[in-house]
Amino acid sequence: MTTSALELVLVGGNWRPAEAPSGSFTGVDPSTKGALPGDFPISSRADVARALAAATEAVAGLRDAPPELIAGFLDEYAARIDANVEPLAACAARETGLAVRPRLSEVELPRTTNQLRQGAAAVRDRSWCHATIDTKAGIRSCYEPLGGAVVVLGPNNFPFAYNAIAGGDFVAAIATRNPVIGKGHPGHPATTRMLAVLAHEAVRAVGLPPATVQLLYHLPPEIGVELITAPEVAAIGFTGSRAGGLKLKAAAEGAGKPIYLEMSSVNPVFVLPGALRERSAAIATELTASASAAAGQFCTSPGLTIVVDDDQGRAFAGQVAAAFAGVTPGTLLGPGSIPALEGGLRALTGHGAQIVTGGKPVDGPGYAFQPTVLRASGAQFLAEPAGLQTEAFGMANLIVGARDVAQMVAIAEHLEGNLTGSIYSDAGTADDADYARLATALRPKVGRLLNDKMPTGVAVSPAMNHGGPYPATGHPGFTAVGFPAALLRFAALRCYDHVRPHRLPPDLQDRNPTGTMWRSIDGTWSQRDVGG
Amino acid sequence: MTTSALELVLVGGNWRPAEAPSGSFTGVDPSTKGALPGDFPISSRADVARALAAATEAVAGLRDAPPELIAGFLDEYAARIDANVEPLAACAARETGLAVRPRLSEVELPRTTNQLRQGAAAVRDRSWCHATIDTKAGIRSCYEPLGGAVVVLGPNNFPFAYNAIAGGDFVAAIATRNPVIGKGHPGHPATTRMLAVLAHEAVRAVGLPPATVQLLYHLPPEIGVELITAPEVAAIGFTGSRAGGLKLKAAAEGAGKPIYLEMSSVNPVFVLPGALRERSAAIATELTASASAAAGQFCTSPGLTIVVDDDQGRAFAGQVAAAFAGVTPGTLLGPGSIPALEGGLRALTGHGAQIVTGGKPVDGPGYAFQPTVLRASGAQFLAEPAGLQTEAFGMANLIVGARDVAQMVAIAEHLEGNLTGSIYSDAGTADDADYARLATALRPKVGRLLNDKMPTGVAVSPAMNHGGPYPATGHPGFTAVGFPAALLRFAALRCYDHVRPHRLPPDLQDRNPTGTMWRSIDGTWSQRDVGG
Repeated sequence: MTTSALELVLVGGNWRPAEAPSGSFTGVDPSTKGALPGDFPISSRADVARALAAATEAVAGLRDAPPELIAGFLDEYAARIDANVEPLAACAARETGLAVRPRLSEVELPRTTNQLRQGAAAVRDRSWCHATIDTKAGIRSCYEPLGGAVVVLGPNNFPFAYNAIAGGDFVAAIATRNPVIGKGHPGHPATTRMLAVLAHEAVRAVGLPPATVQLLYHLPPEIGVELITAPEVAAIGFTGSRAGGLKLKAAAEGAGKPIYLEMSSVNPVFVLPGALRERSAAIATELTASASAAAGQFCTSPGLTIVVDDDQGRAFAGQVAAAFAGVTPGTLLGPGSIPALEGGLRALTGHGAQIVTGGKPVDGPGYAFQPTVLRASGAQFLAEPAGLQTEAFGMANLIVGARDVAQMVAIAEHLEGNLTGSIYSDAGTADDADYARLATALRPKVGRLLNDKMPTGVAVSPAMNHGGPYPATGHPGFTAVGFPAALLRFAALRCYDHVRPHRLPPDLQDRNPTGTMWRSIDGTWSQRDVGG
Repeated sequence: MTTSALELVLVGGNWRPAEAPSGSFTGVDPSTKGALPGDFPISSRADVARALAAATEAVAGLRDAPPELIAGFLDEYAARIDANVEPLAACAARETGLAVRPRLSEVELPRTTNQLRQGAAAVRDRSWCHATIDTKAGIRSCYEPLGGAVVVLGPNNFPFAYNAIAGGDFVAAIATRNPVIGKGHPGHPATTRMLAVLAHEAVRAVGLPPATVQLLYHLPPEIGVELITAPEVAAIGFTGSRAGGLKLKAAAEGAGKPIYLEMSSVNPVFVLPGALRERSAAIATELTASASAAAGQFCTSPGLTIVVDDDQGRAFAGQVAAAFAGVTPGTLLGPGSIPALEGGLRALTGHGAQIVTGGKPVDGPGYAFQPTVLRASGAQFLAEPAGLQTEAFGMANLIVGARDVAQMVAIAEHLEGNLTGSIYSDAGTADDADYARLATALRPKVGRLLNDKMPTGVAVSPAMNHGGPYPATGHPGFTAVGFPAALLRFAALRCYDHVRPHRLPPDLQDRNPTGTMWRSIDGTWSQRDVGG
């Protein structure tokens, strides 16, 4: 194979040919199933070694970079994205089948630049590092860069907002002053390359170390493991499937590396009897809208609905099925989408769920699948709780008809860890007692608990938790979305014990470095100088 | 085997005979090598199952317990320890060889009760949970109990301050409202039982769920793995050897459980030329005192010293060797101490270190070992950095003579993760340039960086980091000592998205529940009510 025709990788501060690539691949237009222009290399060990060495060189420069330089990079990158919304959205639409408008250009790209700018604000604010000062004991501590590279592996379903080279993990890793080695998702290599071009330009424009941002498009699995377990790597961020995530988790943790994973979630929605009595049709419409967003390919897409199996519950299930059947199937992300969705549905039906509507791929030029509703009884669910929680990634919803609210509570108790859980109740207080029982059971199973609200739409808020108990993620204490909390995943706690004042980092010196940074001084959160 | 003569385990809120124990063991008096009274069961699967079921029952009660009840328990337990200092210290001294006075009764027990009371204060203060309120987005979050049991495995070297039933991990797990299943260290079962008696009395006195605190003395390794990987267990805290920790780490992480480990550390001490010129003898004395504390059996005991190999450096090494040789060997913790220490020394000499003084067990009635100094050149160290960082747990110090300060820096760059690292420099500024280079290299390798100070003596301060990069611990973002930070290990981030106001937990309601709790409201740390 000659490499001359292959797209370049961004390694060591330069766009260069992949060294001895182990193969190549193209993007696929999911609306036509046709290969897209551009032949992208599957990198070999040589690219990985070069990227690791370059990242290590960047570590020192980033560690010593003034916060303004880091923030300036994030802002500069956001501005360059803003100046390229049309080509970026067009490229991503070709590779993913997602709509240019509103999704890509009006929702996801603005969210992406918002994240970059919120990251910049957090860097300037500095409070994220939790500076803690004990004047009596002579001890000070804060969070600092890890001292190594962060590898970010992006998912297929958000070509911008979770991209390895632009998404939340990227922002968090850079904001905490770690170089990023991005492993793009092979579903949208050209989009990732365009982002990397802009990121690289921004790196050069502000004068950060050239290898602050590096990009490899694809790696054979064993090389991927070598990358994440390399001594030069300090932490890993991954968003994707449970199967892929668990393999990386085992490898990373075996090498002593923190890895932050967002893997799978069926995002249960419980609808209490009072809510159904009050607004069954409206909730069915809400559920359908949420489940149909991006053809169901959101990590927070609702995949499991629980109601009481009475006349009202059955009527609601009918409304949902009818609404699902009326949705025009969206284009799925790529060739892998249909087998994955079919596999999920097979697992559900194999454990006793029945298909009410949908269940089949759609014949046509592109990848598409019928919106699918399944049903199972509460007793079935409780007999096969693991199997009936299988994620079917796409517009598919299992409606479980419970015997009564007590069985809804039991179902909540048998849930695995999820990113979200929603409870709908009546506008008054008729459902309050049931809510209390149900919320108590559901609360420890989910990272985010919602009332009267579908789970899609993740606000980039300081109070957001886009995380949750295993196996939704790998650790229940961290969020992948929201500033400044998301930054803590890529930082190390560092303590200074009787370190002489002039040797302390600025964030820990007596003088508040910005005049506004929040620090915990002798147990009190304060913006003042020590002794001030 | 009959179980009638065996000591009782504390399971399910009662002291009861171990069910079908798989064996038994006794404590050993390390000063005589004789078995101590009391035959303690090695628990079987039956005890584990019962403890897990009881802990699950306790989860709900603890979750709903008012903070004052949790704080009251911690205070009550501390008071009961205070009332039993003499018998506790006498018992621990018999089992561990540590001195009643000052160590056990005047240092470690006061630290232990201090930790319990600081935990109580953190619970009452409530600020630890990082309540974060976004009024505009309608999202609020905080850290909450994990929703399962915490298993704490205590080490041999701190029978009180790190005990599974009284130490820092215990306090942190209880303060975050999780039931604890303690696995005592088999080196001091009677001490652990005495503590558990007091803890259990305190649980009953304040009215917490009976299974809030449970105790098993010993488990076969495979049952230990079953315990920590059980669905009822939410997290694990472990302090002990690297070999033991890594086995538990693999098991826990494979099951998706967060595990917090404190494993091993050689706590490097770098002495710069100016410091040696100024106060070589004084530093040798400090090093010897620090290394001799508890016969070198502290996790922060200095085991590696780096100087420049010039006349001054060699003179310093001679001073240290002479001082070590003049220390009366202390009694080691138990029968396993000598083989472990010999194994560590064998690894060091096997990689080229030479013994300067000591190196042999001491003949006598108890377990003791000669204070040992080894030496190696900087070139040797850099040729075998892993081998020459082997922890020899006891009073043993490897002095590395570097060619120059540049080689000291290179040595720092080749260190594994450590809990601490110390740099001694002259009182003026002669060493400042060398300090800057060295500190830059050392900083990312250690959790706590010290100036002109030996690493032993871990202040229980909010700014403390008793943690550090792998393999000193399992995660660089957490500390095992210091309130409130240590609590975050045993808590889950929980978000409330448009949850109705009356359904929010008190910490997230508009009204500040204490009037003084610190919360982050719309980006500002505040003690006020929302809108107040």
